[in-house]
Amino acid sequence: MKANIPEVNIPRIVIIGGGFAGLKILQRLCKKAYQLVLIDKNNYHQFQPLLYQVATAGLEPSAISFPFRKVFQSRKNVFIRITEVSRVDVASKRVYTQIGHINYDYLIVATGADTNLFGNDKMRDFIYPMKSISEALGLRNRIISNFEKALIEEDPEKRDGLLNIVLVGGGPTGVELSGAIAEMKRFILPKDYPELDFNRMNIYLLEASDGLLKGMSKKSSAKAYKYLLKLGVNVRLNSLVKDYDGNNIILADGSSLSAKTLIWAAGIKGNSIEGFDPEKWTRGNRIQVDGYNRVTGVENVFAVGDIALLTADPKYPNGHPQVAQVAIQQAKNVAENLENIRKGKPLKEFRYKDLGSMATVGRNLAVVDFPFARFGGFFAWMVWMFVHLMSIVGIKNRVLIFINWLWNYFTFDQSLRLIIKPKTPPSIVTDK
Amino acid sequence: MKANIPEVNIPRIVIIGGGFAGLKILQRLCKKAYQLVLIDKNNYHQFQPLLYQVATAGLEPSAISFPFRKVFQSRKNVFIRITEVSRVDVASKRVYTQIGHINYDYLIVATGADTNLFGNDKMRDFIYPMKSISEALGLRNRIISNFEKALIEEDPEKRDGLLNIVLVGGGPTGVELSGAIAEMKRFILPKDYPELDFNRMNIYLLEASDGLLKGMSKKSSAKAYKYLLKLGVNVRLNSLVKDYDGNNIILADGSSLSAKTLIWAAGIKGNSIEGFDPEKWTRGNRIQVDGYNRVTGVENVFAVGDIALLTADPKYPNGHPQVAQVAIQQAKNVAENLENIRKGKPLKEFRYKDLGSMATVGRNLAVVDFPFARFGGFFAWMVWMFVHLMSIVGIKNRVLIFINWLWNYFTFDQSLRLIIKPKTPPSIVTDK
Repeated sequence: MKANIPEVNIPRIVIIGGGFAGLKILQRLCKKAYQLVLIDKNNYHQFQPLLYQVATAGLEPSAISFPFRKVFQSRKNVFIRITEVSRVDVASKRVYTQIGHINYDYLIVATGADTNLFGNDKMRDFIYPMKSISEALGLRNRIISNFEKALIEEDPEKRDGLLNIVLVGGGPTGVELSGAIAEMKRFILPKDYPELDFNRMNIYLLEASDGLLKGMSKKSSAKAYKYLLKLGVNVRLNSLVKDYDGNNIILADGSSLSAKTLIWAAGIKGNSIEGFDPEKWTRGNRIQVDGYNRVTGVENVFAVGDIALLTADPKYPNGHPQVAQVAIQQAKNVAENLENIRKGKPLKEFRYKDLGSMATVGRNLAVVDFPFARFGGFFAWMVWMFVHLMSIVGIKNRVLIFINWLWNYFTFDQSLRLIIKPKTPPSIVTDK
Repeated sequence: MKANIPEVNIPRIVIIGGGFAGLKILQRLCKKAYQLVLIDKNNYHQFQPLLYQVATAGLEPSAISFPFRKVFQSRKNVFIRITEVSRVDVASKRVYTQIGHINYDYLIVATGADTNLFGNDKMRDFIYPMKSISEALGLRNRIISNFEKALIEEDPEKRDGLLNIVLVGGGPTGVELSGAIAEMKRFILPKDYPELDFNRMNIYLLEASDGLLKGMSKKSSAKAYKYLLKLGVNVRLNSLVKDYDGNNIILADGSSLSAKTLIWAAGIKGNSIEGFDPEKWTRGNRIQVDGYNRVTGVENVFAVGDIALLTADPKYPNGHPQVAQVAIQQAKNVAENLENIRKGKPLKEFRYKDLGSMATVGRNLAVVDFPFARFGGFFAWMVWMFVHLMSIVGIKNRVLIFINWLWNYFTFDQSLRLIIKPKTPPSIVTDK
């Protein structure tokens, strides 16, 4: 089987992964004289910051996903292949995939990061991760199914377990998702399920360290904590999960919680690829790059975004935070440097410019850290919505999300509480 | 396990199936003094007339599905149970389900109909039916996956098979879906896949009888035929499918077609339930009812919609067409008669009032048969859109569909070409 990319006499750049970094490089270079090959498992870009709204029935998956082919519809130099990479051979400059190999002149590793269980691998069968649209949709289906099951569960303890939801990890995902679930509990679920007693439903947010949103200011961290308590979330700091069997969560202090749903947002690790010297993979499974995002000691290979560890930026000697802004800025820098290489100009070193960070906790409640100001509450919530709306790919998606948000705001009601699963004929092997 | 419905001293009406008929009865009776129990496999009502737009990436599943709990949110006398019925015991007035049994005072069988393969059961593993949102979504995923596979397929015959799409059945679903696929081929696919030669893609619509849209006027049937030819669909009348192995379709005249996608919209049969005298099940697996939609010879059991065969309506001695309008009108009649029974008034016989029928073939192309007028073209297309928009449950769904349609009309582009599948942890058994 051949990947079937035509041979041409312009440089071929192969990009592995169409997240924020990969997509941005493609957008920057697609009008230049390169042949560009994008390899991704999915046929769409996913806007991860709003995954939690898919999980809580506020947005449709399609609102935050965008087909790659639509983005590059008129570009004849862009080749998209939906497959998985098995390994890279840097000596022969070749990427091996499930649909055959592809040679490269330049390789961009933008594989991003996935859920990190920190060694608790036996829990993998039971926990809900939140790193993809498929996972968010699986979580949405499960939460709703559990309420349906609770209606007919006679054992009160088991019923409580079906109602309870535990989130692990007090970063943006954990904070935003627990806030959204708390609002579902308050505004929607009692109306949908008048037969159930929602005083029995508990939402726990467990954080191993001593504070929430560690990447943000102390002020914002404290505000987020206050907001979550106000919404009824049981926030437990310094709480480490030891074990989970699908029913009971055992904490490091020996206490336990009963919940059928455990959402794991406690950390990430890089999606590594075979073919690089193992010593290049540093902590969190990130690959060491130099000040220009070049994988150290390898020719013509760049790594960008969550997968890369760049320690040459003076302000960030331990590497950058694994957030969308870093990925996008690195992608812009690499795109510029590829043009510099082509034109024989000197390369430009990467310097991260922190534009600020933000998180939403609930209705009218958000926290924003700008370099010039820190604030919370309603205005922060408006800023959060504006920034996210403007970052979404595609005008139609922006319009549809805006209408959804307006609707949900005024009706106090997300209407996507559907358990939908695609169905294919029995003989058709389901793709991954 | 118990279904857990509280015992009260008002009549309990159990409704099996939340399609057009079941939903309408619930809406009519939910403000009256009944305890209402709805049993359905899904937690949402599906608007079947627009399924074909989900399959062709024009609408999101959520746009045409509506959660039952949202419709009856404030009704404490409505109990919804997501499960399947195993059998009915009419002697003890009891419905047995996967979550336990439920007694009834009145039972409404509104189970609708599913795909009929007319004995070709060995084809079941390979064909795509189009009777549910899950099936439409499965079809959407498959069509897009096939184009991705065609990109890397080296064997020209196999590549043609991946591109070709064959539809069986020239009723509204076959006509509307083949028209929509032809427009995808014309306006979208060549832009998404500039690498593929879409002159090699053939769309076949096979109909066993001598005309399309047999339920409509001859004039409309002929117009639909003309429109489909104009859109590039290969319409073959008097064509009967004999066999299909996932690759080749064998027709009754001995000829064959190569296609990886075979969509079966050739007929339906009632979703029967165990527990009724086998003699009551008549042709097409419909259950015989009297002029009041009561299952003949059984006390307090009604059947409505596609599952019912009512031959006492003088204008329709062979039963009514299996369409939404009949289901809705029968539901209104049964709701009224249940009130008549409660008040000791005489029952009202069912008489179907044909409000007309319509089908859309493509952009600006539709056919409409009203009792007072028959017409086609752009105006028919506007009428079709207006009627369908007004029939959708929920204002938000209406607004979102309207925006989608406007968008698709002016951009010539459906943007939902996503292969999305929910993902659950390995240990969670997937529900049906």
